[in-house]
Amino acid sequence: MVLWSGRRGPRDVERVRPRVAPAALTRVDFTELVPEPVAFLGQAAHIELEAFESLAKAVGTAPTLGAKEGLSAAAGVALRKHHALIAELRRAGAEPVEVMAPFTPVTDRFRGAVARADWYELLLTIYVTTGMLDDFFARLAAGLPHELAGRVRVILEDRGAGERGSGAGERGAGERGAGDVLRRELERAIAEQPGLADRLALWGRSLVGDTMLVARSALRAAEPPGRGDEDVEPVFTELIAEHTRRMDALGLTA
Amino acid sequence: MVLWSGRRGPRDVERVRPRVAPAALTRVDFTELVPEPVAFLGQAAHIELEAFESLAKAVGTAPTLGAKEGLSAAAGVALRKHHALIAELRRAGAEPVEVMAPFTPVTDRFRGAVARADWYELLLTIYVTTGMLDDFFARLAAGLPHELAGRVRVILEDRGAGERGSGAGERGAGERGAGDVLRRELERAIAEQPGLADRLALWGRSLVGDTMLVARSALRAAEPPGRGDEDVEPVFTELIAEHTRRMDALGLTA
Repeated sequence: MVLWSGRRGPRDVERVRPRVAPAALTRVDFTELVPEPVAFLGQAAHIELEAFESLAKAVGTAPTLGAKEGLSAAAGVALRKHHALIAELRRAGAEPVEVMAPFTPVTDRFRGAVARADWYELLLTIYVTTGMLDDFFARLAAGLPHELAGRVRVILEDRGAGERGSGAGERGAGERGAGDVLRRELERAIAEQPGLADRLALWGRSLVGDTMLVARSALRAAEPPGRGDEDVEPVFTELIAEHTRRMDALGLTA
Repeated sequence: MVLWSGRRGPRDVERVRPRVAPAALTRVDFTELVPEPVAFLGQAAHIELEAFESLAKAVGTAPTLGAKEGLSAAAGVALRKHHALIAELRRAGAEPVEVMAPFTPVTDRFRGAVARADWYELLLTIYVTTGMLDDFFARLAAGLPHELAGRVRVILEDRGAGERGSGAGERGAGERGAGDVLRRELERAIAEQPGLADRLALWGRSLVGDTMLVARSALRAAEPPGRGDEDVEPVFTELIAEHTRRMDALGLTA
């Protein structure tokens, strides 16, 4: 569970969710909320695991070895983020599997929603969802305790670009974040296949709701009980704006 | 293509396979053969990619988050080996995708043979095949030019064990080679599920032939044309003996 509280409020340690709906909600940008560190790490680690699994599925079903190369590098980056977040959880004395477990149902439901996607839809799914969710966690991280916020920022900003290791244990050749690789593959396919742009634009629009649901339901499930001052309803204005920019970059109407 | 020659023979640069079967073959242990470096790297890189894809599939279909953790760490190790081998190929001035391409058909055929495996059969498949093929490449590597042999040994011996990174870019928490993770999961399942041991023993026996085919056909496809002295037929005695030991460790009859 992620526990959220207003930026200036005290950390809430109550983990019981009230059964009564709050009477009124104050709408605030989600970046005004303060994440509970362990739950933040668990949720982010679970999302990176999901990103890894999606990228690995894209590797396994890629039509060419060249596509496999770029995607496997991106999968490696997602996996490295996942393991670095897991390491932070252990550092905080938490058991990663227990902390991640509550996030499984919402991720599974999301996964079911995109299970019938073809390869290009799968790529767009990863492009759209990792784009939005990476943004989501990077912005939220600013509310973490100072030192942890710095380490988490380094973890989440890992794009692997331009780092060409040559020995064991170093980063692989030409690794880069998922975004660049996916955009390149999608741009190529859109240029070559008439009609693909329209189909993907439609698919992309359907993904936004599902992705916001992942972010929002994680927040909702953990909304702090009314504390006498206010209950908050997070909004995602800038997140959606950046999604629109990413779709524009592919020539797709968001 | 891997080009093989007798240990003392000159490097053969002829890439055309003779259409006439050699009259007689000298049976030698495959470790007596000298691998052509670029082809060796390409074949090993392709096999590690395949191991990564299989492990990623096992992660994606794992019944518990705990199993996902161990397997994703093992997948990360395989992916790191793959990328380190790719980096060696680039260092040698080779284009990785071109060098790996010839190994796709035999790997695809092998993949088809195990496509209908359930989760435990998938785990045993990875346990048996990566066990045998890691041995295969580690032993062959001794025949590479000295410096390259050293670097390749470091790459292939990467097991990730005991290395607990805590920041971005470091190795993930509790990573270890596929063997340990798979053995633990399989041991647990065999202890809990009556009848599983028999089914897996049978499955394991069927895998040896397929795995040897991957190793052998890669060698055969590239067998050097008769050079006036002798043609060689590689044998895999010690490889099979170690496979038997790995099956014994699980309490399965090889």
